[in-house]
Amino acid sequence: MMIEKIVASAKSSWSSGEGPYHHIAISSRIRLARNLAGLPMPPFQNEDMGGAVLEKIRTAAEQIAVEEEAKLSFFRLSDLSPLDRLILIEKHLISKEHADGKAGRGLLINTAGSVSIMINEEDHLRIQALVPGLQLERAWELADRIDDLLEAQLEYAFHEDKGYLTACPTNVGTGLRASVMLHLPGLALTNQAPKIFSALGQLGLAVRGLYGEGTEATGHIYQISNQITLGQKEIEIIQNISTVTRQIIEKEEETRKIIIKEMPLQIKDRVGRAYGILKNAAVLSSQEALNLLSDLRLGIDQDIIQIGLGCIELNELMVASQPGFLQKFAGAPMEALERDAARARYFQEMLEKRG
Amino acid sequence: MMIEKIVASAKSSWSSGEGPYHHIAISSRIRLARNLAGLPMPPFQNEDMGGAVLEKIRTAAEQIAVEEEAKLSFFRLSDLSPLDRLILIEKHLISKEHADGKAGRGLLINTAGSVSIMINEEDHLRIQALVPGLQLERAWELADRIDDLLEAQLEYAFHEDKGYLTACPTNVGTGLRASVMLHLPGLALTNQAPKIFSALGQLGLAVRGLYGEGTEATGHIYQISNQITLGQKEIEIIQNISTVTRQIIEKEEETRKIIIKEMPLQIKDRVGRAYGILKNAAVLSSQEALNLLSDLRLGIDQDIIQIGLGCIELNELMVASQPGFLQKFAGAPMEALERDAARARYFQEMLEKRG
Repeated sequence: MMIEKIVASAKSSWSSGEGPYHHIAISSRIRLARNLAGLPMPPFQNEDMGGAVLEKIRTAAEQIAVEEEAKLSFFRLSDLSPLDRLILIEKHLISKEHADGKAGRGLLINTAGSVSIMINEEDHLRIQALVPGLQLERAWELADRIDDLLEAQLEYAFHEDKGYLTACPTNVGTGLRASVMLHLPGLALTNQAPKIFSALGQLGLAVRGLYGEGTEATGHIYQISNQITLGQKEIEIIQNISTVTRQIIEKEEETRKIIIKEMPLQIKDRVGRAYGILKNAAVLSSQEALNLLSDLRLGIDQDIIQIGLGCIELNELMVASQPGFLQKFAGAPMEALERDAARARYFQEMLEKRG
Repeated sequence: MMIEKIVASAKSSWSSGEGPYHHIAISSRIRLARNLAGLPMPPFQNEDMGGAVLEKIRTAAEQIAVEEEAKLSFFRLSDLSPLDRLILIEKHLISKEHADGKAGRGLLINTAGSVSIMINEEDHLRIQALVPGLQLERAWELADRIDDLLEAQLEYAFHEDKGYLTACPTNVGTGLRASVMLHLPGLALTNQAPKIFSALGQLGLAVRGLYGEGTEATGHIYQISNQITLGQKEIEIIQNISTVTRQIIEKEEETRKIIIKEMPLQIKDRVGRAYGILKNAAVLSSQEALNLLSDLRLGIDQDIIQIGLGCIELNELMVASQPGFLQKFAGAPMEALERDAARARYFQEMLEKRG
């Protein structure tokens, strides 16, 4: 497989499928941190050691027998262009840190983009499964299966009492991070978000923005994930976060109904303006685009506006409005103002085609 | 004539015709202040005296022979509804002060709305002629003719040295105020306006906003008028202000070309957003609507956007977006938020019809 297949399209397995509660839950992700026994973890590697780990994992991945679409393709990060690496971040397939392309860093990814494995990020292996909607269990099955297949080929660093060993102590144990990406304009606009997020902290859950920024999330998109990896079974962690997420979704649904009932004009206005600006602006920053998309998404979900777009198309617009993808789309690197102009053109075309 | 004919339409003689430089000069107005000899001026009238003046002027107006369309119809302000009086202000046919409808206040107006005479405003007579574009001379001819016809029937308070006597000393002499309403987004956006306006002050000209507010004019619309009424002939005053206005128009045209050349994206963005918001908002305040109309007007004039509307239609939108007209249009009095919603609906309909 060529990386082109992944980076040239705004589609992703997590963004382009239907999933449970996908009007609010954009995607679910499972990440497993694993390390090879007897080899220094990435923070302690020299370049040669990194190369050796990379080869070991690459060979193991080649051995595992899966159906065609689950098949993993291997890439050295240093072989990918900075632009392609940026798009992989924008599609949530690799981390910002991994994208610096330091020698020894690798990526295993399936055609659908539902499984991506970062090699030599903070740990030797970061196995990720990404699915649309709220279905952490499905993501878990996917990651767990790949993990088992790899474990049959590789000896993992594992301690009987502690569990899987990881570079950072916060990941020791299951090595599991389960996270869901939620669109919460109702809770954000009514200022309920800070209180709810503070309660989540007490439940051992963390809240971050779309690309990991602070809690003032762009586009009212929040990632909720577990902080604790030790002392609980994987399935317990997952069920815990799923239950909490369903409660948040209910609260968001309820709040959307309330604000639309109590201030219908203001919400209609917000949605209409978002559509009008996205369709007619000549310059759009990435942040403004995400914020306006949030309003539009709310309006579409609540039937305030009909423009022939659904959640899936909005997810794609969200990815497509990122700097890397825009430059790929334009076929050339661009300065910030050019990008903002290209973004505005992109939205204009997409919305005129549909509206 | 019924007042309905004037107040039920967004059209006005000054807004709905083509005039010289009408892409920048919205309208030209001449106002003559006159008083009847031997009768106390309005600030010193009791109710009976006001009624007597009103009757005298009404009778005189009935005597003057003009063609049908120049014919003046008489109204007592107290007979007009508060809403109709508000619309007369919005169409610049009477002043805010005159609209309070105090006993003894009257209005003479022709069908076209090009001549309106306030009776017992600050002076016994305030004769106004309003025409589209920059053509103060034409407005002057119109006002002068009506003035002559009335003077043939009435004895004006006139002093050989001082000229026409008025309630406020600033109007003594010619009693003339010539004013032009200009749309100056170029000069405003480039911050040249304050400097130019301060120079106008030194030339004895005053600058005000669309409805007489301060120099931070809503919608980048400015009224320029003479301050001095004494010591110059009418035609000199008019020629002076016409010459200065033509210079301002040239400067504005030049500036528009420069900003479109130097920051094409930003201007396109501004115009596009204005259009997008006017067409899609659900709540629009009068001030926001005027500001967005200003951007749209600039875009249409500079061929940045084509939506099947010209200066004349934009003038009508400007009048139609005012609170009084909107309530007339809706057929019912409305609270502020309802008006803002009605305004948004009005723009949506107008722009969908055209765009």
